[in-house]
Amino acid sequence: MDELKARILAEGQVISNGVLKVDHFLNHQIDPKLMQKIGQAFADRFKESDITKIITVESSGIAPAVMTGLYLQVPVIFARKKRSLTLSSGGLETEVFSYTKHEKNHVFLADGMLTAKDHVLIIDDFLAKGEAALGLTRLINQAGAYLSGIGIVIEKSFQEGRKKLEELGCPICSLARIASLEHGKVTFLEDIREGTH
Amino acid sequence: MDELKARILAEGQVISNGVLKVDHFLNHQIDPKLMQKIGQAFADRFKESDITKIITVESSGIAPAVMTGLYLQVPVIFARKKRSLTLSSGGLETEVFSYTKHEKNHVFLADGMLTAKDHVLIIDDFLAKGEAALGLTRLINQAGAYLSGIGIVIEKSFQEGRKKLEELGCPICSLARIASLEHGKVTFLEDIREGTH
Repeated sequence: MDELKARILAEGQVISNGVLKVDHFLNHQIDPKLMQKIGQAFADRFKESDITKIITVESSGIAPAVMTGLYLQVPVIFARKKRSLTLSSGGLETEVFSYTKHEKNHVFLADGMLTAKDHVLIIDDFLAKGEAALGLTRLINQAGAYLSGIGIVIEKSFQEGRKKLEELGCPICSLARIASLEHGKVTFLEDIREGTH
Repeated sequence: MDELKARILAEGQVISNGVLKVDHFLNHQIDPKLMQKIGQAFADRFKESDITKIITVESSGIAPAVMTGLYLQVPVIFARKKRSLTLSSGGLETEVFSYTKHEKNHVFLADGMLTAKDHVLIIDDFLAKGEAALGLTRLINQAGAYLSGIGIVIEKSFQEGRKKLEELGCPICSLARIASLEHGKVTFLEDIREGTH
């Protein structure tokens, strides 16, 4: 998705060889118009997949997931990182390790949010080592639902998440695939293939 | 907003005299189409206010805030409840007590997200005792920005938040105002005024 890649180049900050900060349009400040276009792109990719529900994990996945849900006309659920007063017990639960925050989280889904009849699309903001997306697939499995696809806004293709998700056998759509953050520079996968980097 | 009130009556669960659970369209599962209409309603209310930025706090405020930002054509920032690797130090910070979760949180905003030139609209999912919204006003003050208005999806008018926010002197727009959750029943403020409850 060209506009997204242009925004990453213009506004992304390479913090290290492994970390890209896009706090100006995705992870802290959100550009609603860009999210709308991202939602349209995912909906276009998965419109033939009979999706009944979208799942993401709080918080940065919510904006792209809701825009995708708007175009696919399906509800969005977000797995919670903490139990709240209204989700005090029961439900589905799995452990997810966050490499960005260096901590283990449990993520929770209330009973009844997913059923065995659901065809589920996972949407998330980043794919790095695949921990969050794999956690969501475990919740989908626990509910007996069907994983129809995975939509990722920004994929760090040089980390192992993509390979792990490909082993699931479902379609994966990443709107921007980053081959490298070395030398403080974002290089996209397509640029390498086209020999233009 | 009639559609929102109808959804609260049809799908909301009164957990106690103080707690309403709307996990089916706002706080856990999100109805994107309803969020779009909520965004339109807030944008319509604040379209003359020269808003330059919307602020909310993760996570349930994000969907209505992003839809409002789409219609007002302004960026949305969400205050974070935890520092991340990419927001490791600095920035603005304030303490917010969550009565729902029975805990103190600090909420964080990176430097530069708000400036003294900004006219800011606060959007949040619930107004109860006003802690979250007041925390956001403190961040706005710290940045030297101007508070232009507050948009609340569901207001529990029987708690003290509304009164506290009115003391700020800015316009407040609550799309559904709940007068009481007693006897396991949602009663809206307008219904009492109209004598129809």
